[in-house]
Amino acid sequence: MSIKPIGDTLVPMTTLDQLYAPIADDLAIVEDTLSLVAQSDFLPLEAMLNQVLSRGGKRLRPAISLLCGGFGDYDADTQIPLAASIELLHTATLVHDDVIDSADTRRGHVTANATFGNPASVMLGDYMFAHAAELVARTGHIGVIRLFADTLMVMAKGELAQDVSAFDADSGTMRDYYRRIHGKTASLFATAGAGGAMMSACDAQTIDSLREYGRSIGMAFQIVDDILDFCGTEEQLGKPVGGDLSAGTLTLPAIVLMEDNPDDNPINRFLDAREENGRGEFLDQALEAARQPSIVERCMETVEQWRNRGLDALHAAPTNGPREQLTAIAEFVTQRDF
Amino acid sequence: MSIKPIGDTLVPMTTLDQLYAPIADDLAIVEDTLSLVAQSDFLPLEAMLNQVLSRGGKRLRPAISLLCGGFGDYDADTQIPLAASIELLHTATLVHDDVIDSADTRRGHVTANATFGNPASVMLGDYMFAHAAELVARTGHIGVIRLFADTLMVMAKGELAQDVSAFDADSGTMRDYYRRIHGKTASLFATAGAGGAMMSACDAQTIDSLREYGRSIGMAFQIVDDILDFCGTEEQLGKPVGGDLSAGTLTLPAIVLMEDNPDDNPINRFLDAREENGRGEFLDQALEAARQPSIVERCMETVEQWRNRGLDALHAAPTNGPREQLTAIAEFVTQRDF
Repeated sequence: MSIKPIGDTLVPMTTLDQLYAPIADDLAIVEDTLSLVAQSDFLPLEAMLNQVLSRGGKRLRPAISLLCGGFGDYDADTQIPLAASIELLHTATLVHDDVIDSADTRRGHVTANATFGNPASVMLGDYMFAHAAELVARTGHIGVIRLFADTLMVMAKGELAQDVSAFDADSGTMRDYYRRIHGKTASLFATAGAGGAMMSACDAQTIDSLREYGRSIGMAFQIVDDILDFCGTEEQLGKPVGGDLSAGTLTLPAIVLMEDNPDDNPINRFLDAREENGRGEFLDQALEAARQPSIVERCMETVEQWRNRGLDALHAAPTNGPREQLTAIAEFVTQRDF
Repeated sequence: MSIKPIGDTLVPMTTLDQLYAPIADDLAIVEDTLSLVAQSDFLPLEAMLNQVLSRGGKRLRPAISLLCGGFGDYDADTQIPLAASIELLHTATLVHDDVIDSADTRRGHVTANATFGNPASVMLGDYMFAHAAELVARTGHIGVIRLFADTLMVMAKGELAQDVSAFDADSGTMRDYYRRIHGKTASLFATAGAGGAMMSACDAQTIDSLREYGRSIGMAFQIVDDILDFCGTEEQLGKPVGGDLSAGTLTLPAIVLMEDNPDDNPINRFLDAREENGRGEFLDQALEAARQPSIVERCMETVEQWRNRGLDALHAAPTNGPREQLTAIAEFVTQRDF
């Protein structure tokens, strides 16, 4: 274990394997379930599923879901399909996001749309949504099934909000930003927390606490991602740096910069210049300005606020659950390198 | 009522309003439900939903679902959300199909992708899938919810099969064709039949009969659609004639022509020529050959076979249900003008 400062506290850095230890067996079955999803009697589909499902990933969402199931009557037979369903839904949204963004790579891997084209990738995503719905239906829990459907509605709305607000300076407010990242990311983390607890028949207050925990951690997670998009390296990100702003998506570093200099700032100059030549130069200036240490620091303070909000919610949950692991996950998502 | 010959029988032409009379009230509530789906607190989404949901349509699938509910303990509180869910799922697949086909018009109306662009339309379809899932979850019937998810998987696979087989002469077999149109169309008709019956707690044999009725009528419906794509007018179709073949999709008229002339036929010449100049000329020749009366007649015989198979299945269902209306629907879908 290494110690890495975050804000004014020192927290132990653990590996995900350590955090996941209490649920390691069931998380392995989640992996098996996802491998089964990748099997199909239709070979072109199987090839596509294998490409997008074999990349692993941190499996944060299914881990949160399984851990939150530990606050009540944990039944692996329903918790595992739910956790697998949440991860599959997440992966399906990535497939459609990459179509929408015309992304060629994600986390260093070639995207489905780059390999198989947009039409096939739209259908691949649809198939994965359907399979995720089938997995969650296996739980037999109508409340969780409805939560799942609601979450997909919120996520699609969040992505749509991002799409329609591209290059719109008016979308550069904290309120709009929080709404967008709640939709595209935090809502599924919230569902992981609430869904696991609902499946275990926790009381309403526990469910609400774990939903709020998931939501807050999801907000922190996405803000970290958004900071990294400015401050990371292409190698770290597995995709070009500055992709969000380049696509006209205003995220926290850009918004902080805009709020600091409402009348004249390089973000607005980039947005205004988008239709003209010389846009690349404005982009470089905007990226440079948004990755100033003072801006990044303020963004990190926001991450800490969301993390703390998540931890407060967690502390309101009963002590019988795996609060220690969930605390460590909250630290983990806020400790990626800058 | 007019009389129109089909094959060697004469059947009365009725209007859909007459066929739908026994379920008119509940079908009106299905319409209201779809209108509510189009409402959203997010205005850009509301505009998109209104465009794709306000076009009406024949509502064949929800009508079949409601009618099949009449074979058992019909409860409007669950039959209506199921019927609305099926129609919404259908509309959502059209939105994604139009993205995939880069279609500008559908049934004479401008498509969502033509108005709002591909990225927003992918998300619009996702939102509609999610809302359809939410509607079916309201029924509380796990079996029907799983059937719904399975159907979306089959449909996505069918569309994918169509996409990957484009311009592939080897896909020009009856077996492949039936598999594709089962996936993209007949599976949802089958689900309308089986779903309505399951919701009404019909016995397994009745459910199977009504599934087979729906599936067969769906096959007939799609084959008629595919014949019209060759033989209709642009005005009738609301889109350019010959669109299927032009996109490399081999449908029944093309397949019959290929089977008649395995060694040399205009379809193969078009497929082979696709990468070269002069493709348009080959397309015209292929369209001309496939709309010969002898070809169309044999395609119509296939339609009749599927219709008869559907009617046979219907006759195996109990006499207490609205068999008369379902018989008339079977005639209706096979009687579109050629």
